[in-house]
Amino acid sequence: MKVILAIDGGGSRTRCLAIDLRGQVVSQAESGPSNHLLVAADVVKRSLAEAIDQTLTPARLNRDDVICVSAGLAGVDFDGAGAPAMEELLRELGFDHVVINGDMVIAHAGALGMREGVIALAGTGSAILGIGANGERVKVGGWGPVYGDEGSAYRIGQMSLRAAAREYDGRGPATSLTEALLSALGLHEFRETVARVYVEGMEPREIAALGRVAYEVAEGGDEVARTIFLRAGEELAESVEAAIRQLGFTDAETLV
Amino acid sequence: MKVILAIDGGGSRTRCLAIDLRGQVVSQAESGPSNHLLVAADVVKRSLAEAIDQTLTPARLNRDDVICVSAGLAGVDFDGAGAPAMEELLRELGFDHVVINGDMVIAHAGALGMREGVIALAGTGSAILGIGANGERVKVGGWGPVYGDEGSAYRIGQMSLRAAAREYDGRGPATSLTEALLSALGLHEFRETVARVYVEGMEPREIAALGRVAYEVAEGGDEVARTIFLRAGEELAESVEAAIRQLGFTDAETLV
Repeated sequence: MKVILAIDGGGSRTRCLAIDLRGQVVSQAESGPSNHLLVAADVVKRSLAEAIDQTLTPARLNRDDVICVSAGLAGVDFDGAGAPAMEELLRELGFDHVVINGDMVIAHAGALGMREGVIALAGTGSAILGIGANGERVKVGGWGPVYGDEGSAYRIGQMSLRAAAREYDGRGPATSLTEALLSALGLHEFRETVARVYVEGMEPREIAALGRVAYEVAEGGDEVARTIFLRAGEELAESVEAAIRQLGFTDAETLV
Repeated sequence: MKVILAIDGGGSRTRCLAIDLRGQVVSQAESGPSNHLLVAADVVKRSLAEAIDQTLTPARLNRDDVICVSAGLAGVDFDGAGAPAMEELLRELGFDHVVINGDMVIAHAGALGMREGVIALAGTGSAILGIGANGERVKVGGWGPVYGDEGSAYRIGQMSLRAAAREYDGRGPATSLTEALLSALGLHEFRETVARVYVEGMEPREIAALGRVAYEVAEGGDEVARTIFLRAGEELAESVEAAIRQLGFTDAETLV
């Protein structure tokens, strides 16, 4: 059986689907992070190799059955910057027919079939891609954890730690985030987070994983956690607005 | 000549003074970062060794002339947590009489002679230490670049990059920060900052160094840069307020 491998690689996870020529998914698997801006090249390569092997092997497929690999990877830009290095990496894994795009490009294709419109991608990191009436592309955001990623899981995790620190210091309101974060991290005292974050060294995707904890606290009605999510939504909306403005869309239809 | 070595170690620099028994500074030198939470142990050791050697050698002093080393180090906490490891490190460098404190403790001693009062330390990172009427200590902040350091050079550098990204995206107002940051980083296009920050890997102290660039832009009257500094001041003031509240100070005198 001939298949196409479709890969979606992010800052935390890499997913791979094997799709037959009638468009049916015949196998799938998941591995670690493959954003080459955030993790080392050997980690990216291992994540891709694992996702592919664990997709092919259980379905008794081998490399010769793969007619094409199409990967949308975080860390590859909307205009293809960074793609050649990733293409090289997939060639080293034994695949000759490779199409690499940024993760926001495949998300746009998935949601809008590359027709005109703006999509906001918010996973571990965040970025907004707009495609105009004549195919022109604009990107907003995507500046990573240090000076971007507004509305992303990383930023929500970071703001949750910040809110807990503010409570601890008596600088901010009480919040259930503190206990929830401690429990998720397996710590007893909020001061222990310093050693965990800096000495043991939490990666952006580990901070991002705290976003899920914050989500449950917000669902439970905690005002501080709710405010973090509302702000995240506002920041994504601001970015979408900027993309709409740049593309000159008017009377835009909104799909959510 | 017998001397005391006084060391002030931060996230970017380590300063060492040799002081004779009449209290006169006879020699001084400076080296790299010594915050063990932010840089590896061998970097801390090298910074301390360099600062000490370059203080002793030009003054024709040797290790036997040193009767005591007193070091205030960022990364050591206000209650001495982290001090034993740093003490061990100075013993390995050949010094037996060693006193280690957090950097905020020596700053407090320098500014207020350990009398009651609150000091805000804002260098590469930031932290607030208050000492009460009965010697009780409270710390506010000091949570590092990921979820703290409000009012620090790191945070100002980070907010400056964020403001430039917002301008680039059309999400925020125009600012002279963009050109100033590009010029400081030797780049031509703001998009190149992504490779610089993540692929080449800028350390917190390198982001913090951009605070100086932002300061000049703010001095030049740029509203976006000015707002970043005003917010930094407000955040430090909030932290100082929290410390004052916890210590129960009333009618506090303010020294700036």
